[in-house]
Amino acid sequence: MSDEVKFDWHRQDRTGIPEVVFAEGKTVGQIVSILDGAAERNRSLLITRLSPELCHVVRQQVEAGFDYDEMSRTAIFGAPERSSADPAQIGSVGIVCAGSSDLAVAREAQRSLDYFGVHNALHADVGVAGLWRLLDIADDLKQHSVLIAVAGMEGALFSVVAGLVPGLVIAVPTSVGYGVATGGQAALTSALASCAPGIVCVNIDNGFGAAAAARKVLLNGAIG
Amino acid sequence: MSDEVKFDWHRQDRTGIPEVVFAEGKTVGQIVSILDGAAERNRSLLITRLSPELCHVVRQQVEAGFDYDEMSRTAIFGAPERSSADPAQIGSVGIVCAGSSDLAVAREAQRSLDYFGVHNALHADVGVAGLWRLLDIADDLKQHSVLIAVAGMEGALFSVVAGLVPGLVIAVPTSVGYGVATGGQAALTSALASCAPGIVCVNIDNGFGAAAAARKVLLNGAIG
Amino acid sequence: MSDEVKFDWHRQDRTGIPEVVFAEGKTVGQIVSILDGAAERNRSLLITRLSPELCHVVRQQVEAGFDYDEMSRTAIFGAPERSSADPAQIGSVGIVCAGSSDLAVAREAQRSLDYFGVHNALHADVGVAGLWRLLDIADDLKQHSVLIAVAGMEGALFSVVAGLVPGLVIAVPTSVGYGVATGGQAALTSALASCAPGIVCVNIDNGFGAAAAARKVLLNGAIG
Amino acid sequence: MSDEVKFDWHRQDRTGIPEVVFAEGKTVGQIVSILDGAAERNRSLLITRLSPELCHVVRQQVEAGFDYDEMSRTAIFGAPERSSADPAQIGSVGIVCAGSSDLAVAREAQRSLDYFGVHNALHADVGVAGLWRLLDIADDLKQHSVLIAVAGMEGALFSVVAGLVPGLVIAVPTSVGYGVATGGQAALTSALASCAPGIVCVNIDNGFGAAAAARKVLLNGAIG
Amino acid sequence: MSDEVKFDWHRQDRTGIPEVVFAEGKTVGQIVSILDGAAERNRSLLITRLSPELCHVVRQQVEAGFDYDEMSRTAIFGAPERSSADPAQIGSVGIVCAGSSDLAVAREAQRSLDYFGVHNALHADVGVAGLWRLLDIADDLKQHSVLIAVAGMEGALFSVVAGLVPGLVIAVPTSVGYGVATGGQAALTSALASCAPGIVCVNIDNGFGAAAAARKVLLNGAIG
Amino acid sequence: MSDEVKFDWHRQDRTGIPEVVFAEGKTVGQIVSILDGAAERNRSLLITRLSPELCHVVRQQVEAGFDYDEMSRTAIFGAPERSSADPAQIGSVGIVCAGSSDLAVAREAQRSLDYFGVHNALHADVGVAGLWRLLDIADDLKQHSVLIAVAGMEGALFSVVAGLVPGLVIAVPTSVGYGVATGGQAALTSALASCAPGIVCVNIDNGFGAAAAARKVLLNGAIG
Amino acid sequence: MSDEVKFDWHRQDRTGIPEVVFAEGKTVGQIVSILDGAAERNRSLLITRLSPELCHVVRQQVEAGFDYDEMSRTAIFGAPERSSADPAQIGSVGIVCAGSSDLAVAREAQRSLDYFGVHNALHADVGVAGLWRLLDIADDLKQHSVLIAVAGMEGALFSVVAGLVPGLVIAVPTSVGYGVATGGQAALTSALASCAPGIVCVNIDNGFGAAAAARKVLLNGAIG
Amino acid sequence: MSDEVKFDWHRQDRTGIPEVVFAEGKTVGQIVSILDGAAERNRSLLITRLSPELCHVVRQQVEAGFDYDEMSRTAIFGAPERSSADPAQIGSVGIVCAGSSDLAVAREAQRSLDYFGVHNALHADVGVAGLWRLLDIADDLKQHSVLIAVAGMEGALFSVVAGLVPGLVIAVPTSVGYGVATGGQAALTSALASCAPGIVCVNIDNGFGAAAAARKVLLNGAIG
Repeated sequence: MSDEVKFDWHRQDRTGIPEVVFAEGKTVGQIVSILDGAAERNRSLLITRLSPELCHVVRQQVEAGFDYDEMSRTAIFGAPERSSADPAQIGSVGIVCAGSSDLAVAREAQRSLDYFGVHNALHADVGVAGLWRLLDIADDLKQHSVLIAVAGMEGALFSVVAGLVPGLVIAVPTSVGYGVATGGQAALTSALASCAPGIVCVNIDNGFGAAAAARKVLLNGAIG
Repeated sequence: MSDEVKFDWHRQDRTGIPEVVFAEGKTVGQIVSILDGAAERNRSLLITRLSPELCHVVRQQVEAGFDYDEMSRTAIFGAPERSSADPAQIGSVGIVCAGSSDLAVAREAQRSLDYFGVHNALHADVGVAGLWRLLDIADDLKQHSVLIAVAGMEGALFSVVAGLVPGLVIAVPTSVGYGVATGGQAALTSALASCAPGIVCVNIDNGFGAAAAARKVLLNGAIG
Repeated sequence: MSDEVKFDWHRQDRTGIPEVVFAEGKTVGQIVSILDGAAERNRSLLITRLSPELCHVVRQQVEAGFDYDEMSRTAIFGAPERSSADPAQIGSVGIVCAGSSDLAVAREAQRSLDYFGVHNALHADVGVAGLWRLLDIADDLKQHSVLIAVAGMEGALFSVVAGLVPGLVIAVPTSVGYGVATGGQAALTSALASCAPGIVCVNIDNGFGAAAAARKVLLNGAIG
Repeated sequence: MSDEVKFDWHRQDRTGIPEVVFAEGKTVGQIVSILDGAAERNRSLLITRLSPELCHVVRQQVEAGFDYDEMSRTAIFGAPERSSADPAQIGSVGIVCAGSSDLAVAREAQRSLDYFGVHNALHADVGVAGLWRLLDIADDLKQHSVLIAVAGMEGALFSVVAGLVPGLVIAVPTSVGYGVATGGQAALTSALASCAPGIVCVNIDNGFGAAAAARKVLLNGAIG
Repeated sequence: MSDEVKFDWHRQDRTGIPEVVFAEGKTVGQIVSILDGAAERNRSLLITRLSPELCHVVRQQVEAGFDYDEMSRTAIFGAPERSSADPAQIGSVGIVCAGSSDLAVAREAQRSLDYFGVHNALHADVGVAGLWRLLDIADDLKQHSVLIAVAGMEGALFSVVAGLVPGLVIAVPTSVGYGVATGGQAALTSALASCAPGIVCVNIDNGFGAAAAARKVLLNGAIG
Repeated sequence: MSDEVKFDWHRQDRTGIPEVVFAEGKTVGQIVSILDGAAERNRSLLITRLSPELCHVVRQQVEAGFDYDEMSRTAIFGAPERSSADPAQIGSVGIVCAGSSDLAVAREAQRSLDYFGVHNALHADVGVAGLWRLLDIADDLKQHSVLIAVAGMEGALFSVVAGLVPGLVIAVPTSVGYGVATGGQAALTSALASCAPGIVCVNIDNGFGAAAAARKVLLNGAIG
Repeated sequence: MSDEVKFDWHRQDRTGIPEVVFAEGKTVGQIVSILDGAAERNRSLLITRLSPELCHVVRQQVEAGFDYDEMSRTAIFGAPERSSADPAQIGSVGIVCAGSSDLAVAREAQRSLDYFGVHNALHADVGVAGLWRLLDIADDLKQHSVLIAVAGMEGALFSVVAGLVPGLVIAVPTSVGYGVATGGQAALTSALASCAPGIVCVNIDNGFGAAAAARKVLLNGAIG
Repeated sequence: MSDEVKFDWHRQDRTGIPEVVFAEGKTVGQIVSILDGAAERNRSLLITRLSPELCHVVRQQVEAGFDYDEMSRTAIFGAPERSSADPAQIGSVGIVCAGSSDLAVAREAQRSLDYFGVHNALHADVGVAGLWRLLDIADDLKQHSVLIAVAGMEGALFSVVAGLVPGLVIAVPTSVGYGVATGGQAALTSALASCAPGIVCVNIDNGFGAAAAARKVLLNGAIG
């Protein structure tokens, strides 16, 4: 493994979340070097922000295969991690997604939860402009310990969901939008300024971060 | 009337909206000079952004009395304007207001509509964190030709209202809020980025502007 | 129709504006799925932000033809919607456009109005630097119930038009411009900060939104 | 209770967090009206952002006393709420605070947790410029299910804490700072951009919001 | 004269504009020290941004009197400067001002021109929302070599004036405005983004800077 | 000529500056239509922001040739305009340019002045980090009635030049720079905030605007 | 000493810079508690951002006297620290200050250097609009190992100084300025974007930070 | 050498740092002209921001070879400069780099130090989310006179390093990051707002600037 990368193989022991590989900005050599390290240690790995082009090149240079999902740009190398906790007891995560354009980010959250071995359910295209879509699934949403709400544009979904359910709402603003919504700033400020208590927020497009936080909530501070 | 002020006494003939006096930044002398001009012409006037302190001083220097409302900081001088159109026929305006802190701006809109002789009804404290408050009045809201929605913080109210009613929704973001909501930017971007079609927006805290636009909608381009 | 998309087929009944398809960020599969749903229900549809490239691919996958306009990047699928109201009675919409570079957005507004069955007239290239161009058409502009003003750069057009006409002015800032005008922020703040009462504003480049709002004004809160 | 305020007495049943009174921007009359409503219903209440001056005036107009803390500007009216869950079983919350200037916000979080009946411990003045202060208490921090980290200036505390502990880290950026840190933006972006997974964030200075979220985590989606 | 201040007594010889005293942020001692230096050298001086309170204190500490104008917060010490050029030959400056709230800045420009011995005429309250006010004086405006246009809010005045006259238009955005216009940013971007060629711009509220530039234009690069 | 474009053929009579064609954002058809109009009227034209690619296509569709300069992306169609004023009498313009990367913008200013028939001299690469480069040409710079200073990055050149010369300094910030200088904002604020009086500013990269303003200065308000 | 404050008495041993007390945002009790701790340990202390009002109250509650400077709002408690290094050998620091309004920040740097026992010389009011003021002292400036340059407004001073001297230039942008320079952003971006190599920058108004960095430079990584 | 470029061959004599060639935005002709000038004078040169594509073209047009490093996009032409000072005596520079994506900028700093003949050591991938990576090398870091810390995202590395070592810390924020970290603003504000004294900062991605400053520190104001 090259000197350029000091992979944090012990992060899971320390913080309960295994280090993952954020592929954007990394060279092929750096990614391959990490995957080789994982193979040596017989460890599984989650890779995020892996473009189809980069995935194609990486696949040719590592021996072991991996499971790639193009919409979310995630790859799971090896068997998904298995929490020592019983999934049935620790609760589950609901994911709601405002528009079909936000699906890529919602899927990144879902794939990360899958990798963590956390039960989850994704409801797509339930923006507040058609409130009935959200009210229809309200009873289901109340069953989850944590809700991950994914929305771009004006992000009104965050406040409405948080007013309906008892679980913690983790808002993931997305960079979907144009004009004043460009880059996700409008959705981000909606999440932070929401007057519904019990909402917390992660960086724009950070589906993985929301999943990692959700896992910590379910494990309640115990190392899984 | 001093040379400093060229009041646009003919604006109503041209655009259907009488010029009003925006008091902030004007000297007492300038305001008194305009009021004297109105008295000479036997015209009524609406004054906005008139602080209690300034109001007190102005009152001592003009002969005729006026009706002052402290919450909205508006004064109506002379009899409210009467539209030539029949209010019953042209429809009415509903005003919804997210938090009790937004009331001052909502009242500025209401007082302006009162001055214009436009029927209206104000519903306060119907933020989306308690969605039932809004759903309870949805049938009433559908009766109005225009809805003025007033909200600070994250401004989720705009999108939810626009998804429920057939009338045009005029969003008035307010400067109520702290942190990322300071000054009203979060609510403003929520209004502009809303994915519910049929929302239009005015400047932050501009209750009067929303009322003036609502009046134009009711008169449908005819000069009232 | 895939699970990814929950199309709001009843939006028109509820709000008077049929849901439209915002193509940007959607996959070909999602768009085709919606069009198939429309064909099944024998419904017409408006698609906005449909790039020529995406249009080409979609056309190959749906049976029924549609009417595509490249400048505005809009497609009308099926017969344009017909309002139950009599167009002659409900008034018309004037569109003014500051520069020839703003035409794409102005055309999006016009195509949307066409789809809604609303009478309209478009005046291009009437920026305020040559004020005579605007004054020449002032009498025509006064005939419309609503004016949609489309401008990038510094957006001075909004204030000047609003000072001339009795109808509501819906400002559409465009992302046309460079330096401080990059992305449309300068035009947007001009629209919102205008001292001419009776201006309302939509998001940058949102020609469709302006048309949807204009339609609501003409129908005056009734469901068309 | 006046028409201006529609208090959401049922929010706790719905979302697990009782509505609280955000005093900033409310009039004395509005606050007194809510307190009277609470007394009638025999309910306790938490009031945040209550300035000493406003507190003084309110105290003179309500019969029942309340417990006021000047540093955090919070008042607890009636007996603190008691969760139906056993505090010993649901875990506890650690609060870490970077500088002594951030204490007011940290105390708002602590007082809110006290009101919710949640066990907590506050460690003040443990900024990363003297890393030993934080390492000294690391073992203690690992015992808590949730960490609330409060920091202004550059907010480096968030990342360092999240790299050390297994619990969820809720970052509360504060408006403490000058120059580029004015208003809390630098700390906010540090929280959101942190490369340590498992951090979530609330609005600047929102100590109450962090406490409300922490309570949801401990109750794990059950209504307390 | 104290060591703290190194006054540039030779600036006029070098650049054609005498140094002036910007009072904001200076101590009384620093201002008095400069005035004493001027008295010693038998020089006149222009002081800008001198608040009434500071003016009062300074007046008590300097022997010679000075001419103070409260609206523009300017003081002229000694006889106004006399250009060696014949004012009749070098042309004159027209000042137009959008709202009565912008008058303070317009007057700073006018007082500076008076101090420079430059002919000028000020037209107040000619905002574009009442275009007739501007068209009425268009012929007069065309007589001036330079136009100084002073406007806050959306600053549409700059473009309209520049489309009407042959002289150079110097735009002075003012900090008059609220919401998106707070601090003058909206007017500033309007000036810079204007599509009317021949507009140049100075800093927000910089009436003196516009006057200094105007003087340079009239002297056409010669030292006056 | 198509309906899309209303060219302002009389702008020069009104404002002293002929309308020019800003090619960015225009279609080939729109540009060709304007050129055909110019040919019909036997008028010359300046085209700015014409990319080499667009130039190539346009050239194939218009009969008359034109003089294209790739660095500045300007084309002059027909003979350059000839001012009625005697160039020798009205003075000249000096152009100074901070870095070699700013040359494209400086050349746009120079080409525009050439088209206007105004004498000018361009000094490239005279940034203040090597102050001797600027001091070496100071005497030459003092001979010009107007200085156009072109700089990106931190834009310190504007203040230094304005402290050295008697002529008006027109600052043209450029979008050259990275990090905090991205897009030209750092240079723009340097120009506007300069403490050297007699600087005015145009939009980022607006070399043509600076030339148009310079021409107005030389003609001193007379129509050339 | 109260639990609220964990003073870092060992910072000097670790980093070479003793911890100082940043008074802004601290309560009187917190400051007094730190001073008492210093008295107990027989340590000296530097306090920055101590307003005259706060100073007055603190003085009444601590036994030992301290040396307070109102312009810089700094207090030195006990004898200034004495570096173990020989000041004559480690070099000295020159401070240049653009305008008389920037003096408060320059003095904070100077007082901090005095406290550190570092030789220094302050040159006030040497802005670049009068370049001769700077060139006059250039030979002196070249003698210093480090230059601290303090400037608000457009901050052109940083680039000009860095082009003249061999020592490291530490730029301190100040919040002096109005319009686009409000809060110091224009000066800050000038420092960061400067094209003169060898400039580094600290936060706006951070005179102490510049002094602390300068001391590190002189000690060259050794603990003084 | 063309007139477009006035290379500052004497900068080293004046400021101790030789001028380098910033390739971005320069034409091939300009770069070749400078290299030819260097060859004529028998001087070595450092070129930064030279893309592989541009490098390829330049190489074909200059006779002498040069040493190109693709990761850092730097080229060294001729023998690296040799300081007259003894490297062993003047100390060395440590470079720490938060993530593998920041390596390009860290390498630009390293290559510049190599060119200057300054001893240095680079530690990659030592972000604070895995604090042990940094603590492991703390003793080594304390040996260096200057630390260059390179980080994108939230930039917490700057504060942590500065709290551990006695040397000056030069922070280089990088443009690595997404969402609120886009472009490097979050890391930049972290560096400037850090509460650890002794940090200074350069522009985003400016590895060369940090190296130039570090060299000045080592030479302590003497010209090397």
